[in-house]
Amino acid sequence: MDFSLTPAQLELQERTRRFIAEEVIPLESDPRQDSHGPSEALRDELVARARRAGLLTPHASKEHGGLGLSHVDKAIVFEEAGYSPLGPVALNIHAPDEGNVHLMEVVATPSQKARWLQPLIDGHIRSCFCMTEPSPGAGSDPSMMQTIAVRDGDHYVITGRKWFITGATGAGFAIIMARMEDGSSTMFLADMNQPEIVIERQIDALDSCFTGGHGVVRFDGLRVPAEDVLGTIGEGFRYAQVRLAPARLTHCMRWLGAARRVHEVATDYARKRQAFGQPLVEHEGVGFMLADNEMDLHVSRLTIWHCAWVLDQGDKGRHESSVAKVLCSEAEWRVVDRSVQILGASGVSDETVAARIFRDMRAFRIYDGPSEVHRWSMAKRLARH
Amino acid sequence: MDFSLTPAQLELQERTRRFIAEEVIPLESDPRQDSHGPSEALRDELVARARRAGLLTPHASKEHGGLGLSHVDKAIVFEEAGYSPLGPVALNIHAPDEGNVHLMEVVATPSQKARWLQPLIDGHIRSCFCMTEPSPGAGSDPSMMQTIAVRDGDHYVITGRKWFITGATGAGFAIIMARMEDGSSTMFLADMNQPEIVIERQIDALDSCFTGGHGVVRFDGLRVPAEDVLGTIGEGFRYAQVRLAPARLTHCMRWLGAARRVHEVATDYARKRQAFGQPLVEHEGVGFMLADNEMDLHVSRLTIWHCAWVLDQGDKGRHESSVAKVLCSEAEWRVVDRSVQILGASGVSDETVAARIFRDMRAFRIYDGPSEVHRWSMAKRLARH
Amino acid sequence: MDFSLTPAQLELQERTRRFIAEEVIPLESDPRQDSHGPSEALRDELVARARRAGLLTPHASKEHGGLGLSHVDKAIVFEEAGYSPLGPVALNIHAPDEGNVHLMEVVATPSQKARWLQPLIDGHIRSCFCMTEPSPGAGSDPSMMQTIAVRDGDHYVITGRKWFITGATGAGFAIIMARMEDGSSTMFLADMNQPEIVIERQIDALDSCFTGGHGVVRFDGLRVPAEDVLGTIGEGFRYAQVRLAPARLTHCMRWLGAARRVHEVATDYARKRQAFGQPLVEHEGVGFMLADNEMDLHVSRLTIWHCAWVLDQGDKGRHESSVAKVLCSEAEWRVVDRSVQILGASGVSDETVAARIFRDMRAFRIYDGPSEVHRWSMAKRLARH
Amino acid sequence: MDFSLTPAQLELQERTRRFIAEEVIPLESDPRQDSHGPSEALRDELVARARRAGLLTPHASKEHGGLGLSHVDKAIVFEEAGYSPLGPVALNIHAPDEGNVHLMEVVATPSQKARWLQPLIDGHIRSCFCMTEPSPGAGSDPSMMQTIAVRDGDHYVITGRKWFITGATGAGFAIIMARMEDGSSTMFLADMNQPEIVIERQIDALDSCFTGGHGVVRFDGLRVPAEDVLGTIGEGFRYAQVRLAPARLTHCMRWLGAARRVHEVATDYARKRQAFGQPLVEHEGVGFMLADNEMDLHVSRLTIWHCAWVLDQGDKGRHESSVAKVLCSEAEWRVVDRSVQILGASGVSDETVAARIFRDMRAFRIYDGPSEVHRWSMAKRLARH
Repeated sequence: MDFSLTPAQLELQERTRRFIAEEVIPLESDPRQDSHGPSEALRDELVARARRAGLLTPHASKEHGGLGLSHVDKAIVFEEAGYSPLGPVALNIHAPDEGNVHLMEVVATPSQKARWLQPLIDGHIRSCFCMTEPSPGAGSDPSMMQTIAVRDGDHYVITGRKWFITGATGAGFAIIMARMEDGSSTMFLADMNQPEIVIERQIDALDSCFTGGHGVVRFDGLRVPAEDVLGTIGEGFRYAQVRLAPARLTHCMRWLGAARRVHEVATDYARKRQAFGQPLVEHEGVGFMLADNEMDLHVSRLTIWHCAWVLDQGDKGRHESSVAKVLCSEAEWRVVDRSVQILGASGVSDETVAARIFRDMRAFRIYDGPSEVHRWSMAKRLARH
Repeated sequence: MDFSLTPAQLELQERTRRFIAEEVIPLESDPRQDSHGPSEALRDELVARARRAGLLTPHASKEHGGLGLSHVDKAIVFEEAGYSPLGPVALNIHAPDEGNVHLMEVVATPSQKARWLQPLIDGHIRSCFCMTEPSPGAGSDPSMMQTIAVRDGDHYVITGRKWFITGATGAGFAIIMARMEDGSSTMFLADMNQPEIVIERQIDALDSCFTGGHGVVRFDGLRVPAEDVLGTIGEGFRYAQVRLAPARLTHCMRWLGAARRVHEVATDYARKRQAFGQPLVEHEGVGFMLADNEMDLHVSRLTIWHCAWVLDQGDKGRHESSVAKVLCSEAEWRVVDRSVQILGASGVSDETVAARIFRDMRAFRIYDGPSEVHRWSMAKRLARH
Repeated sequence: MDFSLTPAQLELQERTRRFIAEEVIPLESDPRQDSHGPSEALRDELVARARRAGLLTPHASKEHGGLGLSHVDKAIVFEEAGYSPLGPVALNIHAPDEGNVHLMEVVATPSQKARWLQPLIDGHIRSCFCMTEPSPGAGSDPSMMQTIAVRDGDHYVITGRKWFITGATGAGFAIIMARMEDGSSTMFLADMNQPEIVIERQIDALDSCFTGGHGVVRFDGLRVPAEDVLGTIGEGFRYAQVRLAPARLTHCMRWLGAARRVHEVATDYARKRQAFGQPLVEHEGVGFMLADNEMDLHVSRLTIWHCAWVLDQGDKGRHESSVAKVLCSEAEWRVVDRSVQILGASGVSDETVAARIFRDMRAFRIYDGPSEVHRWSMAKRLARH
Repeated sequence: MDFSLTPAQLELQERTRRFIAEEVIPLESDPRQDSHGPSEALRDELVARARRAGLLTPHASKEHGGLGLSHVDKAIVFEEAGYSPLGPVALNIHAPDEGNVHLMEVVATPSQKARWLQPLIDGHIRSCFCMTEPSPGAGSDPSMMQTIAVRDGDHYVITGRKWFITGATGAGFAIIMARMEDGSSTMFLADMNQPEIVIERQIDALDSCFTGGHGVVRFDGLRVPAEDVLGTIGEGFRYAQVRLAPARLTHCMRWLGAARRVHEVATDYARKRQAFGQPLVEHEGVGFMLADNEMDLHVSRLTIWHCAWVLDQGDKGRHESSVAKVLCSEAEWRVVDRSVQILGASGVSDETVAARIFRDMRAFRIYDGPSEVHRWSMAKRLARH
């Protein structure tokens, strides 16, 4: 058993930390962002800075220009990146691109990689992942998928509506999940600039950390050539699982950094702000909340590290990533909520970054499976044994 | 002991409920509102509708044109009004006007009432309450007040900066708390349209339910004639207490309605949305959350009713209103948070009113004393006995 | 709406409080009790004291010698009685006798009342209620009942095993639930001193507040004459509900008194015990816990009062009594657990009454339906509407 | 980073697990134990079995006949031992002996080791640790110590009263903390069979897992020769810290095993027990509780492993052991409480081991510093930085 970081990990941690502090945080108040997220222009600048710092798309394989990080390496780098709401955008490690890179490295063909994956890794384009549907379609339960793909000669014709598609507006291409006539599902790759892909609207959401926000996307008989199938026909659900376990873990990593940030902001405030004759931090009521923050950050980190290590051993980590998702999304949320409380009116206003992270993070408890779905899958596993 | 409502209370409850459903909820998506709150124009329309329905400023005395509601009456009407984020604006019962009306009815002179209170009750102007200050001034601890009032002949000269002043932008007048040279404090009335009152900026806050949002207000040597002192010189802290106990209870009432709204939205969704073979509501994991919501709403209502009854007996209710503030702000928050969770992506987007109420309500746990200050005062009382 | 107590209620409250303080608490360390509960001799002495004080079986009708208390009256008296672990024994208001008295007043025949109910009310005998069975029989789900009653001429022959039967050892008679051949259920009355009733053993349980403890009872072909059927054949489940709603509410009442007791013990300790330079109570960490205790006691009391009032209106209160059971059993438990924590080693030892009440009260969260069953029934009701 | 166990650790884990299953659990219902704990005779048999299995006092150095376990090794072995309430007694790793062995290995003289430590490690005698005092003496705050040691020639004369001294009855020797005339403190070694050491009484406590229970011990002018001082005069508080950090971590380890046991008992029950048409485990309400158990066990284990690793690096781990104490004592407690709830009446009775572990474990939240003291020390550290 060993909880130490290698020298290479320590260097990467320190470099990312410095990059976020010096190159990213100063841009947090940049006007090129709105309630949907950072604009493409701001994203381009952030990406350029990460490229210069040698930190762009670090989870991609070295072959494709990344740093070839292991899951444990990612745990370290992504936490640092998450320290700023703009950090994951800068490093090109945000959902859904991060997971799409991972999935495509595993299942895409060489020509698909050249056409879509490489510019994605290089930060030149963005992608989206079209799985979730509005009611009565696929939400927590992917088996309810309504979007269909029908074979037509050398093509598949995709018809349906997807909902809450992160980054859709402005994305270069999409991975589209659709149900086949036999009830199985398949993933397709498609450029977004086609007339049969209509972004009906952008959704106003609590969070504002994703470039492109979240869109409603309609496929009006989109024709996809057979060579643009991602992987094998009928394997869509399995790939979704391949993509999901590590993808949800990277959520935990990024939000750990965000929670740590807010905790530090609150701690700093509690040391300076006086009330009733002493600094807030010397009131046990406040000090205990900060102590609870530290413990929640600690167990989140340990849980992430453990799950990352399990994945690095070649295990699929379905149980461990469910555990990590529930634990981290709830513990990190508590950290942010307590910090907002300590900050008082400063915490619910734009005085600090806390309110922004508070809004961003609430959705984390729902993305990639709400706690309830993961508890349910844990319970089913327990019932079976 | 009797938990029944009188026929008059039932009629008022039903009338308010219908008013909110028919006249207010349809305006929730009105474009005349932004991230700071409903515009003055939207407010005017809402107020006009409440006036027509005989529900405007119902807590004001009959003498001044209100309905002369008791605290228990208010518990019933304000809960119904809070069912829509625009309801309290419509009925003119939102902070800070609600508490200002109450305070001025008790301590203002006849001429002050004619000049400021009557148009406030009539919905023709709004007011603000300038107490909170930026660090190192008065926040949770009012004794740290930095704004000073210095006697100068027949006038007082007020200098200082106030922060997070709800409704400042667009308010007709302000009640200003300032520290006197002897360390006591005094409340002053002043029209807002004076050059010595500068609204430095509007604060971007989580909530967006108050017309005028929250502002930073600077007093640059504002001269206030002695006849515009509100009540007695040196009694500011005592008046703040007079105002606060019932004011914080009305927060509990309004937010109870909001929490009930979100609970009903989530319940409706859980009945319709299918996942894993059955409606969400039939999953115990979801059903238990809704059951917990019902219990949290129930104890909030009972606690409010009890405290209102104590106030109606003539008691100051300082302990009871602290209890109500902590209990309701935490229980009602849990209701909203669970409901958002059940609603999934719908809950963190603009698909329903849930995300809006979620943002609005977070601040309630801080306004009029965060939980920690109230727990502290309860603990001190326990220590003394 | 009115939260005040009548003069008669205030007098009864004060009288019960004084009785518990003067006549019952001094017997708490009486050696005539063991890990199963107070002995019959100690019970007899306690009952005699309550009889002298005019407080014996106060919930029984005046016709049968009780005080004819309303449900709200009971809320007041039973809370006071619960202040001592021996109080409910003294007043003869403990489970299962309390509920049995209530049920028999409603459905027993005059001769059944004369033979069993009157001596029960007079404190001369005790009773038990034989419903719960060991797995795979009736536990939380009464429809799984395995004990059967077969008609044989003028008799019914009962065969089966009951489990966790409170007060069985030493009881004068039993109410026995059994399944009929048609799947319905029936309640029977039977003297305990019959050879076909075998108490297999006493169960070692966490609690020790019931005289007779909890037993495993076997019916070996017990012959019950038809005239000893309680109420109507086939109505057993319905009667169980009649009995249960108020019975579980009286649990809430008694344990409220117990929780208040432990809170007061902890508060007293926290005022006196010094640590790190000041009394414990002046440490916010402790003071906040005591404040939370006060709030939990407050909502428990309000919830009980409300449900009692609903029952007094003639409503069955099935939803309200479920709400009360969950809320009170969880809130009162938190009070006891926090108090034990504050008391430190004193709280986990025999230095105070806290550890005893801690052990006793844990079972309350399970008796008369665990929280999970009540949340489930609330959820089902929500699903239906 | 590496979460794997070495082959030696895996073998030790498996061997301990088998030993507990085959040699210890069968003795759990042995009559040679009462409400204070296992008798000396039962302990002797358990110790003899562990000796035969090569598992006795495994944390002692190899030099003294132990296995020379690292802290991480202990984490693995002690968890397995804790799986039975009798396991720590069998392996001779229970408080206070476990910590006393550790402390004496570090600071005792060779002759002290020969006289007291070796027979302690060999399981021939037991020891106690006399620090805690009744109010107004040393409880959570050791600086309040009232027991004094006065120099008298070659001796120290110790006078005072100690309280809640685990294992005092039957112990061969004691480590006694006393205050010196200069306000510092010192540890002394003393055989228990001296007339100036009076065990006033045994305390009835919630737990019953320690042989000897907990006693009140009085020192009536006990004369201790200077060579029986443990370590250096005046260093008592520092040694108490040396002893405490790892000692409290071993509590976390043992109780992790106990919590896992109860979780497994509850899981097994939930798979078999039917209610409302399906096994309990298939009710989400129950399944979610078991999932929460798994997560609480997981974070407890990770936190323990991390802290143990920190200690193995030579760090004092004061912060980490505080974190572990709070996290584990609260998370493991939740596991036990939820399991009792799932077990229903079986959980509050002697049907399973759950009620016994429930009683035992409550005290863990208080021993070696209640959560509140540890949160306070974390908060103070945060205030300083």
